Amino acid sequence: MSERNGRPLRLAIAGIAGRLGRVAAEAVVGATDIELRGGLIGEHSVPKDATQVQTFDELFAAGEIDVVLDVANQPGSMLRSREAVARGLALVCGSSGWSEVALDELAGEAKERGVPVLFVPNFAVGAVVMMRVAAEIARTFPHAEIVELHHDAKLDAPSGTAKATARRMEAAGADSVQIHSVRLPGLVAHQEIIFGGRGETLTLRHDSLSRDSFAVGILAAIRGVRRLSSGLHVGLELVL
Amino acid sequence: MSERNGRPLRLAIAGIAGRLGRVAAEAVVGATDIELRGGLIGEHSVPKDATQVQTFDELFAAGEIDVVLDVANQPGSMLRSREAVARGLALVCGSSGWSEVALDELAGEAKERGVPVLFVPNFAVGAVVMMRVAAEIARTFPHAEIVELHHDAKLDAPSGTAKATARRMEAAGADSVQIHSVRLPGLVAHQEIIFGGRGETLTLRHDSLSRDSFAVGILAAIRGVRRLSSGLHVGLELVL
Amino acid sequence: MSERNGRPLRLAIAGIAGRLGRVAAEAVVGATDIELRGGLIGEHSVPKDATQVQTFDELFAAGEIDVVLDVANQPGSMLRSREAVARGLALVCGSSGWSEVALDELAGEAKERGVPVLFVPNFAVGAVVMMRVAAEIARTFPHAEIVELHHDAKLDAPSGTAKATARRMEAAGADSVQIHSVRLPGLVAHQEIIFGGRGETLTLRHDSLSRDSFAVGILAAIRGVRRLSSGLHVGLELVL
Amino acid sequence: MSERNGRPLRLAIAGIAGRLGRVAAEAVVGATDIELRGGLIGEHSVPKDATQVQTFDELFAAGEIDVVLDVANQPGSMLRSREAVARGLALVCGSSGWSEVALDELAGEAKERGVPVLFVPNFAVGAVVMMRVAAEIARTFPHAEIVELHHDAKLDAPSGTAKATARRMEAAGADSVQIHSVRLPGLVAHQEIIFGGRGETLTLRHDSLSRDSFAVGILAAIRGVRRLSSGLHVGLELVL
Repeated sequence: MSERNGRPLRLAIAGIAGRLGRVAAEAVVGATDIELRGGLIGEHSVPKDATQVQTFDELFAAGEIDVVLDVANQPGSMLRSREAVARGLALVCGSSGWSEVALDELAGEAKERGVPVLFVPNFAVGAVVMMRVAAEIARTFPHAEIVELHHDAKLDAPSGTAKATARRMEAAGADSVQIHSVRLPGLVAHQEIIFGGRGETLTLRHDSLSRDSFAVGILAAIRGVRRLSSGLHVGLELVL
Repeated sequence: MSERNGRPLRLAIAGIAGRLGRVAAEAVVGATDIELRGGLIGEHSVPKDATQVQTFDELFAAGEIDVVLDVANQPGSMLRSREAVARGLALVCGSSGWSEVALDELAGEAKERGVPVLFVPNFAVGAVVMMRVAAEIARTFPHAEIVELHHDAKLDAPSGTAKATARRMEAAGADSVQIHSVRLPGLVAHQEIIFGGRGETLTLRHDSLSRDSFAVGILAAIRGVRRLSSGLHVGLELVL
Repeated sequence: MSERNGRPLRLAIAGIAGRLGRVAAEAVVGATDIELRGGLIGEHSVPKDATQVQTFDELFAAGEIDVVLDVANQPGSMLRSREAVARGLALVCGSSGWSEVALDELAGEAKERGVPVLFVPNFAVGAVVMMRVAAEIARTFPHAEIVELHHDAKLDAPSGTAKATARRMEAAGADSVQIHSVRLPGLVAHQEIIFGGRGETLTLRHDSLSRDSFAVGILAAIRGVRRLSSGLHVGLELVL
Repeated sequence: MSERNGRPLRLAIAGIAGRLGRVAAEAVVGATDIELRGGLIGEHSVPKDATQVQTFDELFAAGEIDVVLDVANQPGSMLRSREAVARGLALVCGSSGWSEVALDELAGEAKERGVPVLFVPNFAVGAVVMMRVAAEIARTFPHAEIVELHHDAKLDAPSGTAKATARRMEAAGADSVQIHSVRLPGLVAHQEIIFGGRGETLTLRHDSLSRDSFAVGILAAIRGVRRLSSGLHVGLELVL
């Protein structure tokens, strides 16, 4: 998975001090083919060697970074992702809270700059399987609703995963899919899709009980993004 | 449970041709202490003896009826229930879709006329237990949301049961309880209450899979309403 | 779907007075391309024209019947299915409680006699989708267990559907799949499959809340069985 | 909660290096009224001051410890709990895998020595509420089964919580309650109780998603055990 010449893939993480950022940093540290060059925390950069403070420009200097993983909160994520694309860097974006307009703009810029961008609504492999299977079931059972349940610190609703699931189900033939968002302490990240038929229902549920479930998907996205064509791509399944 | 003098309790059912009305009629026919005097279907009355057509006034004539069970759809239910109270008849109302204002007015009229009225959001014994237990759990876990799921022919949302459950939980100390309404073919009548705590959740769910579950509660309400004081009372548990 | 010459498909139902038999009879009566020739109740046959009592031999006489639907209880089902195959009649069998040995024998006889046999563990379209999807998920999540839940009048455990689901999941790569059987009043027919991964779980659930859900599948099986090759086939999906 | 003379409660933890032991140690360190005197790891003791190695006898020396919290694995737990009781120390035991016989013996010794022992099948407050509510529902719905689901590293089955829940439900009038044990990766600690009635079911579920949920209960048990009478007591609710 590493570079042809054996050089490890050089990575920067925007939002490295957040929950997802720390999971990513930990996963990357255990991977010999990826070198973590530094991270961004809000407006500050955190170089790998903490004794040497860098500006953004220094961190992003040509030749220093191959891939940016953006897991920052909004509005930081929209800033960092566009900055990465503007510099011609391959981008994996796992942040939610993007508007359709902002995403369209990012897609245009990525196409123009010849940069591959992978947008990942959910790094859990189980969530990817859930989305694929949900679209498949929707072909037989077009009437469905989604209930997504998250911890009460989650800022956006509905979740990016729920919106992506609904879009894929509708593309497969589902009627307009309504989404319900539950926010409670004690919850982690859960989603339930209920399909109604004649005298029967089918229910598909994904429970993400620890952030360990994201590590496999994060590594796959970082390793795989540069194999994609330029422009915006959506979904972890493209690199699994 | 029958009258002191051994006379069976005389009942009229408003909305007798609806789903709940037919369950009630069937349950009552099997009870020796209750005599079904007739029913109302929309604007028409259906006398017990089908050879003799009655007007409402005839069906409701003094001495003919002891208790009215109103399970009509709206706006019929609001008309029938007020008519019963105006005639001084004990009333069991199991219809949903009442506004707070209309319910307050009914309560006032019942008090004034000296008539006992029992409002039953849900005749299923399991739903009653669910509501009582939900209020109890809310004392320890005040953060909660409700997801209620019903067949797609149900006209009102949220369900009367969900609203009644939320009110009781809030009275027991719960924060403002949000209600989500799912409407799909294949569903019957279901409700889930999710309580969130530190690192844990509790979930309470009621599934009403056949209308058989209502028969026991309907009979208890009809038999017990006249033992209540005049005015409006809410909840099947008052007669269990 | 009817015969080339426009003649409707002639059907006999073994176990016509049982729960599933009555659903089948009702579904068939509404279908213009199928003619219900008679049914079997225990050891008695019930001809279409009730004024004329038939023996089994008369009911099964050559030319009178094209397809037998066997939904009898055990041990009746094993008798009737073998009888149908012995007479060279296409067979749809939806009964549970068959031993592996008996099923193997039936398969051998069907092959020998040149008769197509379709064994359907569950006529609900949702159950078929569940089984297919479960096998698909098992490829990514090989660790799984099944909890099947049925009314307390169900005689056999585990259910035929659960066993068929486990077999298909194991064929797709799942580890040995454990099955848990819950039997309680109030339940109808439900099955839950829980898949465990790293830090996450996926759950797939099917709820069969009324026997209406079987009608579509029963008609598809009756219409499609003669398009199958001779010998034993398993699963409604072969004719959907 | 501290001693009358203001002296903090002195605690030793058996099994301090296990999962539950570490949660307990962390919770205790944040409590000003409890002083952690040391812990036991297998056959070794870990004194508070790591520079000074202690033998068991030194750690347990009279006057040094007020309460022992035993969360060791078996067979260690049975050894440590009996040792604590033999020394006359108040004991909180949260380990599973005790046989009925061993528990009876411990109860006898505690009675004889005048020592209060609190056995806690589950330190999660939500689990305690679940058990109490399950017993209450069982009074109306006596037909019930339990499905308990845990990570695949859990050694014992059924879980202590499931057995304790079943006992309490049976004491409240439930029929013999069957327990099903699901063990899968990705699961944490979950329990579902399904009650079946006429045409309806009630389901109560507890999900323990992080060990944080145990901290509140552990502190309550340590602080409250010495207020109990001598002998064996079961259940966190006695000190809530």
